[in-house]
Amino acid sequence: MSGHVPTVPAPDPLREPDLLAADPEGIVEVGRLVGELTSEAAKALRRRSGPLPPLTPLELAHVVDAQLPEGPLPADGGGREAVLALARTYASHTVDLADPRAAAHLQPPALGVATATDVLASAFNASVDTWDSGPVAVELESRLVRALTALAGYGPGADGVLTPGGTASNLQALLIARDTALRAQRDVRSAGLTGMATQPVLYCSELAHFSVARACSVLGLGEEAVRPVPADAHRRMTAEALEKALEARAGNELPIAVVATAGTTDYGSVDPLPELAATAHRHGARLHVDAAYGGGALFSDRLRPLLDGIEHADSLTIDLHKTAWQPAAASVLLVRDRADLTTSTGLRVAYLNPDDDGAAGYDGLLGHSLATTRRADALKVVATFLALGRRGVGRMLETCHDLALFAAERITAHPRLELVADPVLTTVVFRYVPAGGSPDPERADAVNGALRRRLLLQGRALIGRTDDLAGDEATGRVRLKLTLLNPRATRDDIQELLTAVEVAGRAVETEELP
Amino acid sequence: MSGHVPTVPAPDPLREPDLLAADPEGIVEVGRLVGELTSEAAKALRRRSGPLPPLTPLELAHVVDAQLPEGPLPADGGGREAVLALARTYASHTVDLADPRAAAHLQPPALGVATATDVLASAFNASVDTWDSGPVAVELESRLVRALTALAGYGPGADGVLTPGGTASNLQALLIARDTALRAQRDVRSAGLTGMATQPVLYCSELAHFSVARACSVLGLGEEAVRPVPADAHRRMTAEALEKALEARAGNELPIAVVATAGTTDYGSVDPLPELAATAHRHGARLHVDAAYGGGALFSDRLRPLLDGIEHADSLTIDLHKTAWQPAAASVLLVRDRADLTTSTGLRVAYLNPDDDGAAGYDGLLGHSLATTRRADALKVVATFLALGRRGVGRMLETCHDLALFAAERITAHPRLELVADPVLTTVVFRYVPAGGSPDPERADAVNGALRRRLLLQGRALIGRTDDLAGDEATGRVRLKLTLLNPRATRDDIQELLTAVEVAGRAVETEELP
Repeated sequence: MSGHVPTVPAPDPLREPDLLAADPEGIVEVGRLVGELTSEAAKALRRRSGPLPPLTPLELAHVVDAQLPEGPLPADGGGREAVLALARTYASHTVDLADPRAAAHLQPPALGVATATDVLASAFNASVDTWDSGPVAVELESRLVRALTALAGYGPGADGVLTPGGTASNLQALLIARDTALRAQRDVRSAGLTGMATQPVLYCSELAHFSVARACSVLGLGEEAVRPVPADAHRRMTAEALEKALEARAGNELPIAVVATAGTTDYGSVDPLPELAATAHRHGARLHVDAAYGGGALFSDRLRPLLDGIEHADSLTIDLHKTAWQPAAASVLLVRDRADLTTSTGLRVAYLNPDDDGAAGYDGLLGHSLATTRRADALKVVATFLALGRRGVGRMLETCHDLALFAAERITAHPRLELVADPVLTTVVFRYVPAGGSPDPERADAVNGALRRRLLLQGRALIGRTDDLAGDEATGRVRLKLTLLNPRATRDDIQELLTAVEVAGRAVETEELP
Repeated sequence: MSGHVPTVPAPDPLREPDLLAADPEGIVEVGRLVGELTSEAAKALRRRSGPLPPLTPLELAHVVDAQLPEGPLPADGGGREAVLALARTYASHTVDLADPRAAAHLQPPALGVATATDVLASAFNASVDTWDSGPVAVELESRLVRALTALAGYGPGADGVLTPGGTASNLQALLIARDTALRAQRDVRSAGLTGMATQPVLYCSELAHFSVARACSVLGLGEEAVRPVPADAHRRMTAEALEKALEARAGNELPIAVVATAGTTDYGSVDPLPELAATAHRHGARLHVDAAYGGGALFSDRLRPLLDGIEHADSLTIDLHKTAWQPAAASVLLVRDRADLTTSTGLRVAYLNPDDDGAAGYDGLLGHSLATTRRADALKVVATFLALGRRGVGRMLETCHDLALFAAERITAHPRLELVADPVLTTVVFRYVPAGGSPDPERADAVNGALRRRLLLQGRALIGRTDDLAGDEATGRVRLKLTLLNPRATRDDIQELLTAVEVAGRAVETEELP
């Protein structure tokens, strides 16, 4: 039925000189395409009404399905138009972290300069495992981690490595602790944990991140190896409480590590580092400091004192994709003694870093890391600090800290909101108090959970939630949380968020939970 | 001494509306800055003489130091100019994988479309761990992994997860194998490996990737848990050899997994999957297939038969940052039974995915992964396939396979080069034969190692090297390797690479090793 229209064969995209990002024509085309994608994204952002799309999860699933009529792996491609359409859908429906009403997670709005520079990491696709896979990337990462060790107060023998996240940094730190202990008993390479005479255990605050327990599970120590130490009224693990826990251990238990937290996920509280270091070391355990969140205080002259004593840590996690406003991933594991870093990962492989190449200076970072191929994440970080300076990044944290203090003040003054703890970094934990003061803790929990989902569904305010371990029978456990990481947010934005919480709480009480 | 010139205070970059990538002004500025960065990079690329900078590692270190006079974390920032200068240095000194003479590692030149689209992953900084950290990213990843399971021949009960690399995918697969075995004995959560009555062991080809042994070390099984099975003349682990190894095990040894390789790093050889699956399952062990390299054959109608039987694997590693030309990282772990995926990582956390939110449909991918924060790596992958189609990506692999066959033919015909094995995917292993046929294997090794470093130093040809496990006393062990992943390379480029090898070999023989 169709006419006989002669068709010109479409040009083969695989023959085009701009197919590959690292060709001169290719990199120019990347610039051009990013220009189009960002222009489409800007239009989509201007049409948005809030930090989340006002859709249920099921409605969103339908939107994505409609975008992918042949699924995500169609047999034949649709070229640039298909990509632009995907970009529009993505920008319209992702979480908009730059919206000042996005305040849920330790996930910052990314800096433009980091985002833009990271394009070169993708385009050239260097890998830091071997010198000849990314020579300049290897040099940048080495310098970045050494500069960070200096900021942490470590000496010249320190070293570090970038990892995909705080969870991975903590895993590697505890792997080092495990293998240091194993090595003290016998050759780690000759057998697994099944031959150990003693039971390795480690200690951390009950408020430590769940990645500590997960690491123990992965490492074959079992989650039971983690001994959670009760936190004090300031949500910190004191040296006294740690000492008590250590003394209560069984005779066959070997304390391999203490994990201190510098910035608990919910409260931002910082364990007393110098005292914990002394206690850990007195018991022959390594001190690892999980500063995934609080590590950004290294960049701020004003907040740096929160980290006093961090130089006593044997190892240290800092997430630059949290309080240095990097796009994920940019976590760092630092170690005070560089020999420790290669305890578990030092490795020479014939096809990547043979001895004679190493002797000739051609050496990458394979032996530093649990990964093999590893992206040049240092590039975006270095670009950020070259552009804004350490103090510039530090001021962003100070601004968010100020906003948290303001929010706490407004919550305290609010008749229907109750502050749970004074802010230390940039989080504020609180709860909505149901009408009548919530004699029913289960109903209080249900109201707080439901009001947050109501805000999610409306898409106009995105706040966090958590459980309060110290929550008592009278008030329930579910708490609301502001994680303030937008340095361009204002006091008015904070006020708007709190008002939205109150309005949603009242609506939930009257409509959904009559 | 200076004059009294009144200075206008510099605008505060933290107050600029384009600071954050996800603001409408910010995303436009990202587009503009990427335009400048890619334009600078194009200029730098046009000035380059080869895939590596013609510098020693020490000389390169000096170049980077000169670029960072105050180190990578200066107190105060230098703004956009500092970033552009860094970009110039980076583009001039990174490895240029789009240069057809770059043929060293399983690290492809990245596709422009993936590179460009990934900017939105950075700009919006979504994380797939929780729904409200990245709703559309969660949906895209879910659809991508399900489409990949279908290509692999899995049924509707399959699932998967993106990881930072093949090493991480293999680790998670073996964690699942370990915990499945542990769970059969007792509750995995109640204690670590130290209580196991039996010794877990696993089997893989002697040519399997080192990440298998590393995973066993991390998981507390010890590297001795790995039982390397000798490869046959085609560099494959046969079912017969596996059976023999399994039967030789001690009575207290429990085979928890067999790892088959679909595309060995050096030879591209693919273990016979259906036979190995039958043998593994008969012995009660899981079959994991490491198709980090060979997985790209899923996209090619012509090469897909290499992976016949892959649907019998219990789990499966595919690196899309290898044979789908993605910038790192984009690895995938697929599992045939979705319940297995959460054996070790299923987790609910009050602040990320509380039960009542999950029940309301607000659920992310935390429980699928060993990571917490996790970048929206699916976006660039989906954009690539929407643009080029599955067949387009498959044709890139076919083109590189053709180049490998051509290279093997030329090497066979060359009087001073010797082919080690017939290519299966896109690698070609060979050696340079020193004058007189190398009666001295140590000298032959030294010559081959030195000629590669000579090429590195000249910067005009980047080839790989490895050891040949089957290398005998007469020829030494060091081998040269072409890893051909540039679909725009031509036969002339291959010829030029081989000529460069010969010339460097002769020069090394006469100059450096007289």
